[in-house]
Amino acid sequence: MSPDHNSGYPEESLDPQDWDELRSLGRQMIDDMLSYLQTVRERPVWSPMPEDVRAAFQEPLPRSPAKPSDVYRDFRKNVLPYPTGNIHPRFWGWVIGTGTPFGMLAEMLAAGMNPNCGGFDQASTLVERQVIDWAKEMLGYPSQASGLLVNGGSMANLVGLAVARHSKADVDMRREGLQGISRRMTLYSSVETHSSVSKAAEILGLGSQSLRLVKTREDFSVDIKALAAAIQADREEGLKPFCVVGNAGTINTGAIDDLDGLADLCQKEDLWFHVDGAFGALAALSPRLRELVKGMERADSVAFDLHKWMYIPYDVGCTLVRSEPVHRGTFSLVPAYLARTKRGTSAGPTPFNEYGIELSRSFKALKVWMSLKEHGVDKYGRLIEQNVDQAQYVAERVETSRELELIAPVPLNVVCFRFFSPELDEPALDRLNEELLLRLQERGAAVLNSTKLHGKYCLRAAITNHRTRREDLDLLIQEVIALGKGILDEGFIGNPR
Amino acid sequence: MSPDHNSGYPEESLDPQDWDELRSLGRQMIDDMLSYLQTVRERPVWSPMPEDVRAAFQEPLPRSPAKPSDVYRDFRKNVLPYPTGNIHPRFWGWVIGTGTPFGMLAEMLAAGMNPNCGGFDQASTLVERQVIDWAKEMLGYPSQASGLLVNGGSMANLVGLAVARHSKADVDMRREGLQGISRRMTLYSSVETHSSVSKAAEILGLGSQSLRLVKTREDFSVDIKALAAAIQADREEGLKPFCVVGNAGTINTGAIDDLDGLADLCQKEDLWFHVDGAFGALAALSPRLRELVKGMERADSVAFDLHKWMYIPYDVGCTLVRSEPVHRGTFSLVPAYLARTKRGTSAGPTPFNEYGIELSRSFKALKVWMSLKEHGVDKYGRLIEQNVDQAQYVAERVETSRELELIAPVPLNVVCFRFFSPELDEPALDRLNEELLLRLQERGAAVLNSTKLHGKYCLRAAITNHRTRREDLDLLIQEVIALGKGILDEGFIGNPR
Repeated sequence: MSPDHNSGYPEESLDPQDWDELRSLGRQMIDDMLSYLQTVRERPVWSPMPEDVRAAFQEPLPRSPAKPSDVYRDFRKNVLPYPTGNIHPRFWGWVIGTGTPFGMLAEMLAAGMNPNCGGFDQASTLVERQVIDWAKEMLGYPSQASGLLVNGGSMANLVGLAVARHSKADVDMRREGLQGISRRMTLYSSVETHSSVSKAAEILGLGSQSLRLVKTREDFSVDIKALAAAIQADREEGLKPFCVVGNAGTINTGAIDDLDGLADLCQKEDLWFHVDGAFGALAALSPRLRELVKGMERADSVAFDLHKWMYIPYDVGCTLVRSEPVHRGTFSLVPAYLARTKRGTSAGPTPFNEYGIELSRSFKALKVWMSLKEHGVDKYGRLIEQNVDQAQYVAERVETSRELELIAPVPLNVVCFRFFSPELDEPALDRLNEELLLRLQERGAAVLNSTKLHGKYCLRAAITNHRTRREDLDLLIQEVIALGKGILDEGFIGNPR
Repeated sequence: MSPDHNSGYPEESLDPQDWDELRSLGRQMIDDMLSYLQTVRERPVWSPMPEDVRAAFQEPLPRSPAKPSDVYRDFRKNVLPYPTGNIHPRFWGWVIGTGTPFGMLAEMLAAGMNPNCGGFDQASTLVERQVIDWAKEMLGYPSQASGLLVNGGSMANLVGLAVARHSKADVDMRREGLQGISRRMTLYSSVETHSSVSKAAEILGLGSQSLRLVKTREDFSVDIKALAAAIQADREEGLKPFCVVGNAGTINTGAIDDLDGLADLCQKEDLWFHVDGAFGALAALSPRLRELVKGMERADSVAFDLHKWMYIPYDVGCTLVRSEPVHRGTFSLVPAYLARTKRGTSAGPTPFNEYGIELSRSFKALKVWMSLKEHGVDKYGRLIEQNVDQAQYVAERVETSRELELIAPVPLNVVCFRFFSPELDEPALDRLNEELLLRLQERGAAVLNSTKLHGKYCLRAAITNHRTRREDLDLLIQEVIALGKGILDEGFIGNPR
């Protein structure tokens, strides 16, 4: 190519033409967003998008520049009014955290500094290292353990299970891979385990059929006897059991496995013990609830989210690994262009890229660091208790209402229930509750999601929301009953028994 | 647990006590951060951290709350002054993007809305879908392809290679995994390929020894004849070649493989063709440079970063996959609690969690969407050309300087060179340049990194920086020569020839 660079003066940049104008726009954004969050309670939880707004997202690739204020206007008009809804006090679908105003500001600071947190001698690496240290303390995990911030629970499980596979393999897993092994490696968990564990088994090349999903007890915690028997049977078949995944808070009902029992079993059987504590691990922050996750501190690895029950804005999760050398040994890969030095930019204490999949890494740690400083960990413990108490309250309201039925125990913050009428058979109850869930969302009154337990379609509320008040839950109960009765009265369901 | 929730009134939340106070603090942050970015040129590129600042990151887990303004003060004192340096006009180490002020504001908006972009009927999903559509257009990739925003190049390669493995396996890869296959699956790329491809092969359970790293030609592009021979040899051994990874911009020198040649080979051999275009793929944005990556549009999957040569704040990368059904078929996993609906919150056009590893996903798409609207894609094309021209300029300055030696061709934006003195033998030249690199960083004059080419230690400048001006490159040349001469004069190196 002919270098025609002399024509390139003066250089262009992506910095603003007018910094003061951008400063005003930035201040306006702050005002708008804080007002948006301050008034969220006054708006519907979720709204369907009008067709003309949908159509706006068909615009072709912009070729020419637009004024920042015009771009912001597009955002205000077409994006901001149609969020998922999880910032709202009455959003309890799936397990989605709420975020905080200060967390939002911290993300802005992180994006402005824009460090690459793959390593380097810089503040962001020290911030992340400190956040990992705090996370260990929060969960009662050994202080010499290593850790890594990742996007969320799915990645956190993948990282933990990759370390497990590496550590327990008969071969040099990094070199040979699973293609070189003679005995199929198998891992174990309960049928209530989150889909991300299956996904991790698939990504890692273990295959979903290497994941044995063992039955649960009445309370939806894993049946350890059945688990031990499955391990025994696989050993007899000549397979190689290598890992057990314990649940600290299952997705469906918030059930917590007997983690001490699982730790004992893993010790006896020489298996890696991984805990998926996506939200439940954080119960350790409450002195009252900590007992529920006892045994977690004995795990070889723990995965959990900070964007769920720590209410940090998306995204941030964490993997902790008991053995730092095994953790680093699974991922460390340092070619010439990444050579570390004793001085200069490439020095620094913790090359986080050697502990996971990503090489370039964003400054997720800052929002966690600033949030923990803002509130102090004790307050997080109280809020987690508050959510658990709120779930108990919903369960009580359900149990004392003739029109509602509780479908599962409520050990933590998840309530599975349904509208009930003795006139309807099971398929009709399913259909009614399905319609009820959609209307509840469409009205913007509350967002729950659904699941199936014992074959029954249930409404499911998972409370990881720092904005929820008792009055919101009263409104939920009232709305569910009114909607259920309305659907019954309409004859929508048909087929009365 | 005894429900003592009646004691819980009034509820606590993580919202501010005083919204106006937070509003003022937020405005202050905007002013400070924009000034920080506006004046970045006046500061050193990188500075080592003083010991007392390091010590501040040893503070124990905060138990009690602190005022937001005090937390911000900690950030200003201990974090903000010690960035990686990539926001600075004279940072050219590794391949790290610069970020933009407007991108910073977009991240704040995304964190405030805090949507979960795993799917759902909401604006953020449509924004991401539109960004993917734009990305296809930008790269000249087929419009029916699917895509996913991910953290960066490492994840983008992992996703692409997971789809390749799934698509080309003899067995049901998701169910059986690699443990069930009889013929070892092998993939091919050049020795100049980025470490993330090795890492992906390891994570996927293929093992690094299944990755055949083929020699390159003089220009550091893959030797396609040698590659074809390696495939042939493996077939004769009874192995199963399944994928070729082409490079659009190697990390060491920015070399671009003959992508059309690789596409032909893959077609003939029935192999998956994946392109790692971490930064080089974006050359397609420039009408002048587009020809360099011809053939990329024929790939089965393409991985590239938006936080590198699109200068978007960390983190955001992208995988595009030619076949939407194969892409989704690799990852889609929908248990009861994720059931999609035709109406309500769980409706929506594109459940992105079925196209990758993550279930909960952050709103990375917004900063890309707003940045493309702000500048228009043509300007990105011009800036990419500007960086390429700047690299050519450095190469010329190196070639016309007696004290400097160019070590590799400069096809794109990467320059590998060294300080040279005929008095020194190779080991001494290595030591001198190593010391020179560290002093350059420590002085805060510029950040380059190093690599090894033909056994020689080189200084490496990769220009993905929209703030760089010609004067910055003049300063680089001047500093490198002065430092090199100074080190020579000190007799630091010893051993004159």
